[in-house]
Amino acid sequence: MRFLSETTTNGVTGRDFVHDGVPGVLWTPAATDAPSPLVLGAHGGGQHKRAPRSVDHAARCVAAGMAVVTLDAPAHGERPRSAEDERMVAGIRSRVAAGQDAGELVAEYNASLARQAVPEWRSVLDEVLELPEISSGGGAGFWGMSMGSVIGIELVAAEPRVVAAVFGLVGRTEQLALAAAGVTVPMRFLLQWDDQLIAREAGLAMFDAFASREKALHANPGGHGDVPEGEICSAVAFLAERLGVGRLGTE
Amino acid sequence: MRFLSETTTNGVTGRDFVHDGVPGVLWTPAATDAPSPLVLGAHGGGQHKRAPRSVDHAARCVAAGMAVVTLDAPAHGERPRSAEDERMVAGIRSRVAAGQDAGELVAEYNASLARQAVPEWRSVLDEVLELPEISSGGGAGFWGMSMGSVIGIELVAAEPRVVAAVFGLVGRTEQLALAAAGVTVPMRFLLQWDDQLIAREAGLAMFDAFASREKALHANPGGHGDVPEGEICSAVAFLAERLGVGRLGTE
Repeated sequence: MRFLSETTTNGVTGRDFVHDGVPGVLWTPAATDAPSPLVLGAHGGGQHKRAPRSVDHAARCVAAGMAVVTLDAPAHGERPRSAEDERMVAGIRSRVAAGQDAGELVAEYNASLARQAVPEWRSVLDEVLELPEISSGGGAGFWGMSMGSVIGIELVAAEPRVVAAVFGLVGRTEQLALAAAGVTVPMRFLLQWDDQLIAREAGLAMFDAFASREKALHANPGGHGDVPEGEICSAVAFLAERLGVGRLGTE
Repeated sequence: MRFLSETTTNGVTGRDFVHDGVPGVLWTPAATDAPSPLVLGAHGGGQHKRAPRSVDHAARCVAAGMAVVTLDAPAHGERPRSAEDERMVAGIRSRVAAGQDAGELVAEYNASLARQAVPEWRSVLDEVLELPEISSGGGAGFWGMSMGSVIGIELVAAEPRVVAAVFGLVGRTEQLALAAAGVTVPMRFLLQWDDQLIAREAGLAMFDAFASREKALHANPGGHGDVPEGEICSAVAFLAERLGVGRLGTE
């Protein structure tokens, strides 16, 4: 893991790094030396590691006492797109432009990106948990909506160091349901009741598929991009609580 | 409104009263003279104004800086049952005993109780909001699950002094959907994902029916009686926030 540059805004330090060719940012509190528990923050489709939503979410997590790592997903941000990526993206765009349902193609593409992203996340987790500014004893949290959830569901099913997760804005597919049957950590699942991209039934069926005994569905009115701020704050608080922030003796 | 007796447990004072023949309890903090915003707490079917869940909920609300009023619903607690009540209750019991679906009969009975309960709640609200220990400027909150929601949805649709509500554990009926179309306050709707009394589809359709722009569905695994403690705490915090507890200048 090679750190490249550092910016500090409003008490949050973002350090760009590259690990095995994957660019990412580690977000930590600027003002403290105490180790913070880690949240893995996976962006949505078409976004990147420093997209405004990712930066905003990282800042909220840092304010709540956690550190965050964000990565450019495969074929996103600074990362190259293969000819196959270009073909898939063009196919999705042309379906959308023609007013056709691109859901199946998006699901297929996201699944292929997840296959690539899961080992990347696990390898980054190996490295970041070794850093002195990160507390590793209590495990890590996961946050990711939409494409970030497709990656996250596969990741959390495979990765025992993730102990709490917030997923959302994703519909059931056979493959995701299979992965979700291996997710057993406390979790939240966010849906938008009027999501133009995720059919309500598919979203509810996805929630149903998680094996976690402690899981909560939170649905709010509005479209795919309209998750209310309060829901995001509440999810950050959920992760902080699950990662033992403020609890005596976690370090 | 006639106060009858008073008990104080763990810093919560419960004062039994009767108003127009309806027995109730007003729950307030024992230790303060400052006025508290009010929550109307409606119990579920077969319960009463001092049932353990109502007492527990009232204590949580008081701990969060609010006062609570609970009432015996018609034909519940200390209140008489008419021959018609006995007939309905016997009909529900015999269907349940025979392993038949009693949902329609329960909905019909609850609707008839709500018709009676709504003017009772409104009249009690008139009185309680005049008490010096209650702050009336910011409006009141509502909490009620199951039968308490059947009453509450009709009440909140009719009563502009209720400014935030938590409903749940109730399925859509034509009549409730009609009332819910008149509910516009910020609200939460709680469902249990494995509710043996409320079909999942009916619960989701009920959530859909509310007109509130700010509404959130929270669903958790488990049966009708298994709403997680964390969800109840979170709902209390939601009401406190909406009633301006801790906000400067609400009094």
